[in-house]
Amino acid sequence: MPFGVFEYDGKVQLGIAIGAEIVDLNVCHKIGLFEHLDIPNVFLNDCLNDFIGLGKQTTNKVRMIIQKELCDQNGLLRQNSQDVLVNQGVVKLKLPIKIGNYTDFYSSKFHAENIGKLFRDPNNPLLPNWTKIPIAYHGRASSIVVSGTEVKRPKGQLIEGGELVYKSTGKLDYELEFAAVIGKENQLGEPVDINNAEEYIFGFCLFNDWSARDIQSWEYKPLGPFTGKNFASTISPWVVTIEALDDCKVPFHRQNDVLGYLKKDNDFSFDITLEVYLNETLVVKNNFKTLYWSVSQQIAHHTVSGCNLKIGDLLASGTISGKDELEKGCLMEKTYGGTRSFKLLNGDERIYLEDNDVVCLKAFAEVNGYKIGFGKAEGKIIANND
Amino acid sequence: MPFGVFEYDGKVQLGIAIGAEIVDLNVCHKIGLFEHLDIPNVFLNDCLNDFIGLGKQTTNKVRMIIQKELCDQNGLLRQNSQDVLVNQGVVKLKLPIKIGNYTDFYSSKFHAENIGKLFRDPNNPLLPNWTKIPIAYHGRASSIVVSGTEVKRPKGQLIEGGELVYKSTGKLDYELEFAAVIGKENQLGEPVDINNAEEYIFGFCLFNDWSARDIQSWEYKPLGPFTGKNFASTISPWVVTIEALDDCKVPFHRQNDVLGYLKKDNDFSFDITLEVYLNETLVVKNNFKTLYWSVSQQIAHHTVSGCNLKIGDLLASGTISGKDELEKGCLMEKTYGGTRSFKLLNGDERIYLEDNDVVCLKAFAEVNGYKIGFGKAEGKIIANND
Repeated sequence: MPFGVFEYDGKVQLGIAIGAEIVDLNVCHKIGLFEHLDIPNVFLNDCLNDFIGLGKQTTNKVRMIIQKELCDQNGLLRQNSQDVLVNQGVVKLKLPIKIGNYTDFYSSKFHAENIGKLFRDPNNPLLPNWTKIPIAYHGRASSIVVSGTEVKRPKGQLIEGGELVYKSTGKLDYELEFAAVIGKENQLGEPVDINNAEEYIFGFCLFNDWSARDIQSWEYKPLGPFTGKNFASTISPWVVTIEALDDCKVPFHRQNDVLGYLKKDNDFSFDITLEVYLNETLVVKNNFKTLYWSVSQQIAHHTVSGCNLKIGDLLASGTISGKDELEKGCLMEKTYGGTRSFKLLNGDERIYLEDNDVVCLKAFAEVNGYKIGFGKAEGKIIANND
Repeated sequence: MPFGVFEYDGKVQLGIAIGAEIVDLNVCHKIGLFEHLDIPNVFLNDCLNDFIGLGKQTTNKVRMIIQKELCDQNGLLRQNSQDVLVNQGVVKLKLPIKIGNYTDFYSSKFHAENIGKLFRDPNNPLLPNWTKIPIAYHGRASSIVVSGTEVKRPKGQLIEGGELVYKSTGKLDYELEFAAVIGKENQLGEPVDINNAEEYIFGFCLFNDWSARDIQSWEYKPLGPFTGKNFASTISPWVVTIEALDDCKVPFHRQNDVLGYLKKDNDFSFDITLEVYLNETLVVKNNFKTLYWSVSQQIAHHTVSGCNLKIGDLLASGTISGKDELEKGCLMEKTYGGTRSFKLLNGDERIYLEDNDVVCLKAFAEVNGYKIGFGKAEGKIIANND
């Protein structure tokens, strides 16, 4: 039961996805389902932020009330189901959060190693800081779009045949990522203790960090990626709360060679299957639990020098990869830096993305026989004719 | 006549600084000074964003109405001066803008060369991309604070004597920067043409990008600075509009070896003197016009791949340095990577900042005999006893 924002009948409001339908939380508030919670109507809104700001105690109660009401055939919700339930087919899903700050981590060791082997040193792929720091950089928040938004092939400056040129990227790539949505704020100057980090997470969504590899490789030294990434990132419209993922928590491997502020007893990851489809061909299948750095470690490190997290901030994992071919989370890895093509189901060959390609990220967890879905983060590449 | 936000008598509102006083724009709106502009009251607000969103045509008219009214001893403003004018001494100045996205450029060639000589190669200090790209990275927006906010010495991980340690930074530095405030939005996927870039600038303010050099040098490869910078940046409370700076525009040197999207006929810079005081000793004196990349070039490059700028975004210049000792915009340069100390007026020696040090950035332009001030961006370092 994930939270999102949808437009229907000219109004934008918050909802919970349940199968092919959406529970309209604005209507639920109006008919009094949350009366004893004594909360303002934060549900007629274009983002989840105010709702998240009510705090976990309240947001979890809202989720549980809806869960209970859906099962009660004689309850208030079912009595008003005509107004409360909206078919997903007739709505427009919106960007679920107002993202004040977006940070992209680099937390998959397999990914860092695969890239390091290609571009650094096959025998020594990782920089010395990689196993000590959950490496990250600040990304561009304004260009994060919701699933379904088309992505125009970016132009920029790059080197081609030794010449500096201005042109459309020829190396457009996806990145399979998973992002945490921040649900609680720390004060500037007050780091979050790793043992309390979980309180700061509202939930998770899918994240595709589109990248133009030719632009990126020319610009990124020494301050990191810029125009090669800031043209668009796509997120899924539904945010699954961390509490809803309780049953798919798995123990986290403990690194012994990190500083104390990154050590947590009983740290955890999640057993969540992640997939990428390119024009309906499965091109990546991996699992969130393969990440080297946990979300708690990411939060502890992000705030270690005092940086303040805000409600709605996004902390993305970085490309999630494995060793095997199908586990590689971006095309740069899959095609060995663009040197080997691969085939789609229909026989088409690809190295990087072509115009009209559709990339779709999906995720699901299976717990006690039921399945938690994360929806999808989909985008179609459109030609740049400017 | 710069714009800002101030708190007085329990209310937060927009104002214009005029000498030792502030023109309360909320009161000006109430007494009808802007009646024929037919604008909503955006002046009782905690940031300039909605005001800026009215567009240059309107915001410039507001400035001109106030300018005219201040000179008219029998006008509405002067008749109501008791309510309209507030002494700066009794107000609290606030962060003037809600900053959605903050980008830090690296636009001073002297700075890049000084740093490159210290840490790269004395004979080849610049990376090959530096003269082709206005290099930049996305910074942290949430931790930008207004002048007067204390800065707690950050802790983090760093290498000391070959060992990995968690401790307070021993290399805390300031960076003299100047920042453009974005006043107009472009659509995602629609780059801003360099010849229209000026339209997108509302104004300018001072910017101090505090940096912890020991944390930064350990973490920054390969994705750029993170916890070594995201703990705080300080801006001045007053934003001077670009139109108010018309008379201090100076011609901009034209680079011939850049791509077309970075070339603008009659590009411009500004003759603005910039100063940094450390505990009242002048430690930097330089000029904005020494920058290698113009603000128009920064905007054209920022959006070249389609990135969308939002009202209130901040585009900071990067450290502004020159060749001479007094022109070096940060301590890392001034002390040759922390190897040479220097003396303050009172005889104290410094290499990096110590607890209780006060750093104050100032700027002014002199045109036709009158002086445009930018106020100050000041911060005091406080000990980290956590």
